[in-house]
Amino acid sequence: MRPLFHPQIEDVRLEAILHALSDPARVALFTQIAAADCARTCTALAGGVDQAIPKSTLSQHFKVLREAGLIRSERQGVEMRNTARCTEINDRFPGLLPAILDAHRRQAA
Amino acid sequence: MRPLFHPQIEDVRLEAILHALSDPARVALFTQIAAADCARTCTALAGGVDQAIPKSTLSQHFKVLREAGLIRSERQGVEMRNTARCTEINDRFPGLLPAILDAHRRQAA
Repeated sequence: MRPLFHPQIEDVRLEAILHALSDPARVALFTQIAAADCARTCTALAGGVDQAIPKSTLSQHFKVLREAGLIRSERQGVEMRNTARCTEINDRFPGLLPAILDAHRRQAA
Repeated sequence: MRPLFHPQIEDVRLEAILHALSDPARVALFTQIAAADCARTCTALAGGVDQAIPKSTLSQHFKVLREAGLIRSERQGVEMRNTARCTEINDRFPGLLPAILDAHRRQAA
């Protein structure tokens, strides 16, 4: 099984973060991951976001979020556990993620 | 000459803003427009951002920024004057643009 690629925080690019979160499904997924106190699994998330997202599409969304530096994914048996890299990103780009997540909430309201 | 499309502020979508600013040339263009006290023209901006951007590419970038709701463009003779819609967007998504522009500055530093 190939190792999962996670960029070093200093290699995380603003453009990649904005691209990753410019997709409605991905910003919704990331919002849930960031809101979770504990790591969430792909399966649990798929239920919360949209029952209709096929598993392969969901894996692709997680890959984009991971490679943009937004989440850390760990294989645990057949599951994948995802956690948001909020603290690291907030050190690099202060206020960016809170502002995007707040805008997402306002738009959904 | 076709009228330029500008979305109403209530139709401006977070995803469109993030997509528009996920391109390095566009975020640089928008940063300059937002920083300008007065409206900037395409020609003046092209000089500031990258002499190598062809005019047609630049027009396309302005179109994406305009249709995302980030800028207002006005034809003035053969020139196009662009202003940032910062105040309107800040009312809709408080803190979003300052956080993105700050992240852009930190990354460029």
